[in-house]
Amino acid sequence: MTRVHNFNAGPAALPLEAIERAQKELVEIDGTGMSILEHSHREPTYEKAHREAIALLREYLSIPDSHDVLFMQGGARMQFAFVPLNLLHAGKSADYLVTGTWAKQAHEEATLVAASYGAKARKVISTEVDKKFTRVPAPSEFTLDPEAAYVHLTSNNTLFGSQWTSYPETGTVPLVCDMSSDFGSRAIDWSKVAVAYAGAQKNVGPAGVTIVVARKDLVAAGRTDIPQIFRYKAYAESESLLNTPPVFAIYMLRNTVRALLDWGGLSAIAKEGEEKAALLDATVDAEPDFWRAPVEKASRSRMNVVFRLPTEELEKAFLSQATKAGLVGLKGHRSVGGVRASIYTAVRKPAVEALVSFMNDFAAKNG
Amino acid sequence: MTRVHNFNAGPAALPLEAIERAQKELVEIDGTGMSILEHSHREPTYEKAHREAIALLREYLSIPDSHDVLFMQGGARMQFAFVPLNLLHAGKSADYLVTGTWAKQAHEEATLVAASYGAKARKVISTEVDKKFTRVPAPSEFTLDPEAAYVHLTSNNTLFGSQWTSYPETGTVPLVCDMSSDFGSRAIDWSKVAVAYAGAQKNVGPAGVTIVVARKDLVAAGRTDIPQIFRYKAYAESESLLNTPPVFAIYMLRNTVRALLDWGGLSAIAKEGEEKAALLDATVDAEPDFWRAPVEKASRSRMNVVFRLPTEELEKAFLSQATKAGLVGLKGHRSVGGVRASIYTAVRKPAVEALVSFMNDFAAKNG
Repeated sequence: MTRVHNFNAGPAALPLEAIERAQKELVEIDGTGMSILEHSHREPTYEKAHREAIALLREYLSIPDSHDVLFMQGGARMQFAFVPLNLLHAGKSADYLVTGTWAKQAHEEATLVAASYGAKARKVISTEVDKKFTRVPAPSEFTLDPEAAYVHLTSNNTLFGSQWTSYPETGTVPLVCDMSSDFGSRAIDWSKVAVAYAGAQKNVGPAGVTIVVARKDLVAAGRTDIPQIFRYKAYAESESLLNTPPVFAIYMLRNTVRALLDWGGLSAIAKEGEEKAALLDATVDAEPDFWRAPVEKASRSRMNVVFRLPTEELEKAFLSQATKAGLVGLKGHRSVGGVRASIYTAVRKPAVEALVSFMNDFAAKNG
Repeated sequence: MTRVHNFNAGPAALPLEAIERAQKELVEIDGTGMSILEHSHREPTYEKAHREAIALLREYLSIPDSHDVLFMQGGARMQFAFVPLNLLHAGKSADYLVTGTWAKQAHEEATLVAASYGAKARKVISTEVDKKFTRVPAPSEFTLDPEAAYVHLTSNNTLFGSQWTSYPETGTVPLVCDMSSDFGSRAIDWSKVAVAYAGAQKNVGPAGVTIVVARKDLVAAGRTDIPQIFRYKAYAESESLLNTPPVFAIYMLRNTVRALLDWGGLSAIAKEGEEKAALLDATVDAEPDFWRAPVEKASRSRMNVVFRLPTEELEKAFLSQATKAGLVGLKGHRSVGGVRASIYTAVRKPAVEALVSFMNDFAAKNG
C-alpha cells in the first residue's frame, strides 16, 4: 500500500501507528478472546483505555485539576446547544464573537436556546462581509459585556482558514472556545480558557467523540432544570460513563494522543505546526500573481491554509493533478471554493513539503 | 486466538466476519491509501458505506417508505430527551409505560423537558415493586389517554430481563418504542410503531451510533423552537449528514447488518433467537430447586435471560467457573445481581448450547 498525503479537513489523517495498533487489536484485544468493540464499557479492558485517554489528554495539553475532561457525543454542533443549556442561566446574557460559519451557527443555536427561558445570546461583532469571513477582529473593534455569563468564540475557522492568534481578554467573564479544528495543535493557557470543546476528528482522534474541557466550578454550577443527559455535571460525576460511551472513538483517541506524545508531545507538535504553516504561507506569498490568499495575513490559520488560483479552471486542474500525485483532500469547502490544505497534527512535514514542491511545479508550468 | 462465548449486555458480541472485514480494511480501504477513519464524510468512500448502512437496515427490518431512518449520537438516553423535544408540543401530554430502569428514566427526562414549556409526561403505570421490575403489564391493567401526543414504552428491559411480547393497541396515538436491546432481533410491524429508537450496540452494531426510525409525518411536524441539532427533521433532510457523523460506528453497523442478512436475514435470526431463549428457559425451568427465574414467565425476555442460583456464593462460583470455561459477560447488572445471559443476534446457537451444557454440569455438581 502507498499511503497518500491526506489534507482532509476532518475526519482527517491519523497517526499510522495509532491505526495499525487498532488493526492489530481489532479482532482480539489483550488476549481476551474478543474485540475492543465487544467489551462491556463497565469492565476493566475498556475502562483502562477510557481512563488512559483522559490521562493522556491531560498530560498532552497540560490540563490542570481545575478543569474536568468530558467525553460526549454529537460533535461540536451539539455543544452549540449544550453550552448555553448548561452555562447560560435565565435572565443572563452571553457574548458571541462571530468569525465564521460555525461561530455564526453557535450564536444561532444559543439564541434559540436562550429564548426558551428568558436568557440572551448577544452577537458582539461579526466579520462577515458578502457571506465571506476573511479575518478575526482586533480587540479594539468590540466591547465585551462585563456582566456576560460567558464569551464564546471559535478559535479556528475551518472553512475560511482564519484563526485567533491570541484570545481577547475577558477579565472575570469565562471564555468558552469552540476549538474543534485546533484543539491539540498548540498550547492552551487554562488560566484564561474556562471551557474548550472540540470534535476529536481533526487533531486528536476519529469522528464520534466530542471533548469538553470545562472549569469545575462552572460544571458544578450548571443548570439543573435540563435533562440529565445534557448536563456537564452528570458526565463529570460519572467520568463520562453516564451511559454507553462511543467506545471505539475514545479508544482511537487514546491511540492517537499516545502517538502525539511519542512524537515529542505538544511543544514538538506545535513547533512543527508553525513550520508547516510557514512553508505553505511562504509558497503562496512568493507568487502573488499566481496564488491568492483570501484571508488577511494576521488572521491566517495554522491549521487550514486556504488559497485561490487565477481561474476556477486552474483550480480544477490543480486539484485533479494533485490527487493523481497522491495529495488528496485539498478541495476547498463547497461554500468557499478554491484550495484548502488542512495540516493537522498527523499531517507531518514531509507531506507539506511534497505539497509545496507540487505547488511550485504547478505554478511554474501554468503561471 | 480462541474466541470466547460473549454474553455481554452491550456493547456485545458482533459477527466475526464484520470485525474481520473492518480489520482488513482499517489501514487502507478500497485502494484509497487511507483508512475509513481518515476519509471525509462528504466524499464517495464514506458516503457509500453510509448509504449502504441505511439501505441494508431498511432491507433487514422491512422499513417502509413511510418512515425515515436516522443516525444520531448520544445513545438511547439522549433520545429520552429528544423524543419529547421533537414530538411533545406545548399543552400536550404523552403517556409513559414504566416497566424497568430505562423506562423510568425516559419518563423522568420527559418530565423535565415537558415542564420547561408547559407539556406533560404522564406515568400511565409502573410495574416497579420494591425497586424491582419483574413483568410487563397486561393491557387490562391500564388505560391510555386517547388524546396523548404519543405512548412511550421500552420494548425490552435489559437489566431485569423482561420484554413486551406484543405491544398495546394505541389506536391513532403514535407508539414510540425504545428498542435499544431488541431492535434487529425480531420483526416490527411498522403500521403500529411510529418511532423506534435504539443504541446500535446490542443487536446491529457497535456503540457510538443511535438509530431512530420515525414516521415521516411526525418528523415533519416536529417542534421547530428547539436547536437544529436536536431536530429529527434536520437529520432526515440531510440523510443524517447534518454534521460529521460517527463514521466508524456507522461503517461497522453496515458490516454487521450485512452479516445478519448473509446469515439468512431477519426471519432466520428471529427463529434462532426463539430457539436460543427456549433452550435457556427450559434449562432454568427443568431444575426449579436450583435455578430461579425472577421474571414472570409471560414477560420473559428473549434477549436477556436472567436467573438466580440458590445462594450468592454459588452465583459467584458459577460466574468465575463460567469465565474460565470461556463463557463471559454473564454477571447480572449491579442493580439486580444474579446471572444474565444476553443472547443478541451475534451470539449464535452453539454459544447458548455451550452455556446450557455448562449450567447442567454446574447444577449436577452443586445441586
